[in-house]
Amino acid sequence: MTARGKDFVEELPGRHEEGWYAALIAKAELADYSPVRGCMVIRPYGFALWENMQALLDKRFKATGHRNAYFPIFVPESLLLREAEHVEGFSPQVAWVTEAGGEKLDERLAIRPTSEAIIGTMYSKWVQSWRDLPILINQWANVVRWEKRTMPFLRTTEFLWQEGHTAHRAADEAQEETMRMLEVYRDFVETELALPVIKGRKSEAEKFPGADATYTIEALMPGGRALQSGTSHFLGQNFARAFDISFQDLDGERRLAWTTSWGLSTRVIGATILEHGDDGGLVLPPRVAPVQVAILPIWGGKGADRGAVRDAAERLQRELSNTTRVEVDWSEEKQIGWKHNEWTLRGVPIRLELGPRDIASEQAILVRRDDPNIGRPEKRAVPWTSLAGTIGRTLEDAQSGLFKRALAAREAQTRISNTLDEFTQIMDGPRGFIRAHWCGAAVCEARIKEKTGATIRCLPLDEPAEEGTCIVDGRSSYARALFARAY
Amino acid sequence: MTARGKDFVEELPGRHEEGWYAALIAKAELADYSPVRGCMVIRPYGFALWENMQALLDKRFKATGHRNAYFPIFVPESLLLREAEHVEGFSPQVAWVTEAGGEKLDERLAIRPTSEAIIGTMYSKWVQSWRDLPILINQWANVVRWEKRTMPFLRTTEFLWQEGHTAHRAADEAQEETMRMLEVYRDFVETELALPVIKGRKSEAEKFPGADATYTIEALMPGGRALQSGTSHFLGQNFARAFDISFQDLDGERRLAWTTSWGLSTRVIGATILEHGDDGGLVLPPRVAPVQVAILPIWGGKGADRGAVRDAAERLQRELSNTTRVEVDWSEEKQIGWKHNEWTLRGVPIRLELGPRDIASEQAILVRRDDPNIGRPEKRAVPWTSLAGTIGRTLEDAQSGLFKRALAAREAQTRISNTLDEFTQIMDGPRGFIRAHWCGAAVCEARIKEKTGATIRCLPLDEPAEEGTCIVDGRSSYARALFARAY
Repeated sequence: MTARGKDFVEELPGRHEEGWYAALIAKAELADYSPVRGCMVIRPYGFALWENMQALLDKRFKATGHRNAYFPIFVPESLLLREAEHVEGFSPQVAWVTEAGGEKLDERLAIRPTSEAIIGTMYSKWVQSWRDLPILINQWANVVRWEKRTMPFLRTTEFLWQEGHTAHRAADEAQEETMRMLEVYRDFVETELALPVIKGRKSEAEKFPGADATYTIEALMPGGRALQSGTSHFLGQNFARAFDISFQDLDGERRLAWTTSWGLSTRVIGATILEHGDDGGLVLPPRVAPVQVAILPIWGGKGADRGAVRDAAERLQRELSNTTRVEVDWSEEKQIGWKHNEWTLRGVPIRLELGPRDIASEQAILVRRDDPNIGRPEKRAVPWTSLAGTIGRTLEDAQSGLFKRALAAREAQTRISNTLDEFTQIMDGPRGFIRAHWCGAAVCEARIKEKTGATIRCLPLDEPAEEGTCIVDGRSSYARALFARAY
Repeated sequence: MTARGKDFVEELPGRHEEGWYAALIAKAELADYSPVRGCMVIRPYGFALWENMQALLDKRFKATGHRNAYFPIFVPESLLLREAEHVEGFSPQVAWVTEAGGEKLDERLAIRPTSEAIIGTMYSKWVQSWRDLPILINQWANVVRWEKRTMPFLRTTEFLWQEGHTAHRAADEAQEETMRMLEVYRDFVETELALPVIKGRKSEAEKFPGADATYTIEALMPGGRALQSGTSHFLGQNFARAFDISFQDLDGERRLAWTTSWGLSTRVIGATILEHGDDGGLVLPPRVAPVQVAILPIWGGKGADRGAVRDAAERLQRELSNTTRVEVDWSEEKQIGWKHNEWTLRGVPIRLELGPRDIASEQAILVRRDDPNIGRPEKRAVPWTSLAGTIGRTLEDAQSGLFKRALAAREAQTRISNTLDEFTQIMDGPRGFIRAHWCGAAVCEARIKEKTGATIRCLPLDEPAEEGTCIVDGRSSYARALFARAY
């Protein structure tokens, strides 16, 4: 039996071909294009992924003392203008409401591209005394940034995200919060999405408009391009000054608060698809897979006892549903080969086949989605009595296996380069991450970008100092920056 | 000890005074006004209420076979124009994006006031064969309707809601779905929010623009005004025709689908506040209360053993947190009277006091928020060993008690009227629900509205027929309609 029927083997381009990502998103019904330029529809299967991600991330936010709230989607233009760098960074991408309720508005309202301005205005009202600090709030919301080029999940005009906004009494507290949430993102993305990331600080050119410092987690996708997966900003007192978030301190003095913000979006769905997918379709990390186990009854021929197969499938579903997200493919008209393809395409971590002969021997045939041999995966007979335990262990093993595989792929695609020529050759060829010395000058950074298309993804944290010379101007450097072309 | 210190007894107007609702929302930190006209900020305590409601409702949606998805917030004007009644109903309230990305747009984009148009467009693409039906999708989202008069939670320019959108092969299936979701709403609102409601059909004048029929659940608030708490629309083939949602049926014929939509919003938070609140502040139904049990350590005098009180509070919190949402008020600087007021204001169903003497006798003092004697509630000593059980039963008892109280209040405020004069006197006086005969003519309905401010809230379902004569024109009527002034 071949695991890939003609239904999609001919239609889904190979993993390394151009149209694979877009075709997979369409065929797996993760998302669809909408009649609104640059906006997509997140279909139920894609949204179930997001719901699982939300639950796991929200739990981490609450465990670190944050509470959710909701702020208006509209930001009056006058508020957006208050922080100079911020407005300069975002205004080219803003969508403006100018008419409402049948009238032209006196002041344009921005659809939030991010909510520092509206939230800062509220914090200014809520913060009076040092006793009101810290404020630790998160918001799950939609935001709009008018993008020229869009790609489902990775870059869309409207997208879903969470944005945390906190205010603190002291700089070190705010700095600590910035790093805490960066670590929450790293832990979430690595543990739940099996995406290895590098933590680091953004260069001045790449930081969030209005921030003192932006920290990021950067993943590397199989095509050798980097994907920024979450950012945490130390905003210093810039927004506190612009929106007057001030408080009476213990000593009676009026002081400005220190603020942070941090965000992670539906873009990580794109990263998950890109990183783990293969020629057969999606390969979902078990912890966020909407369906972890698909039971495929094999109905047998005409005289076969369908009732017995049905009973066994129902019983296994009932037993497994206490510990896993399990679904039975009850359809009778579809061929088993078609079903294999379907569940393979959808990236379900474990497929359990259950035919008349399996029932006689009280077993099921277990097939793993992360088996590298997609066409002829290993098939393993597992007795019903040990199925729950085996599945639990297999899901954990698949989860850690995906992470290790991704980490090995990233290491294989991470290179050290000491000259701009070599750097350029790598970016024209296999791409990937390049660790190279950079003096810190914006002109050198711009030169590299112009010549190679690569940007500084981050200045990695927690790395030993290394003396060297900038690959552009030869000036001194004390650490290697991480470069890549990015999504 | 008086349970109401001077801190808020002087500031929160009485339940029946004008400013009670707005003051309570501010003082309990449920919501705040924003710098955007008609938009509010839902603060963490209010949002936690919404999160609990969402979880309970979402579970019901999934149990009835629905899946969540996400559609763009923008609706191009040309799509909104497709269904004539729909656009006529909504366009006066629409906010329009006319500029984006630094350019004037060729076509105005509406911020969704509801999503039939954009979702209908997608369904048209997804539905080809009878095999693609039914489609059962729900969306949790923000929507915008430009309102002239706003009131926190009850009517705001932007609000949060869920909107279900389904497409079916046959009319009876769609009708069944419409009624199923109406019943889901009734069950949710009555069971979880302790709000008794009347199910019924809207009159032509009050139905959703573009629907064949709108069904509603109507609650009655203490001030004698009705509050529409959820609606379920049978859309017939109106939207299927406008957006071409058609399919090839079993017999090979191309047919239009039948669609439904149904929505419930953050407005039910307002209903919950209004219905159960009292002079002391909020009274939250235990099932949705963000905090169900507040433990108040009483630290005692200077020589007292604070460590013992702390240990006991921690232990009780740990034990109770397995089954309830429990919080300890650790603050040491606040007076106990102030704390009583604070937790009373916040509507926490059970308060547990724990002082040095209670610790000696291994007991806690339990006070119920729903005790009608707010100033001097009953205090009951409960041994630690039976605390978990007592609390479980008390929360259930409080939940059903709130429902019964609200139901009795509604019955007391529901009147039968057979003449327009009497009807008018009631609406000028105590208001409430009026059951009156109506012939079905829009002019009679309009006459009543003009003279009394009352509208037909619904034509109640499941009521025996009763012959009578219309209170306006004396023509025949076969059932009483339910009238009220509404929020």
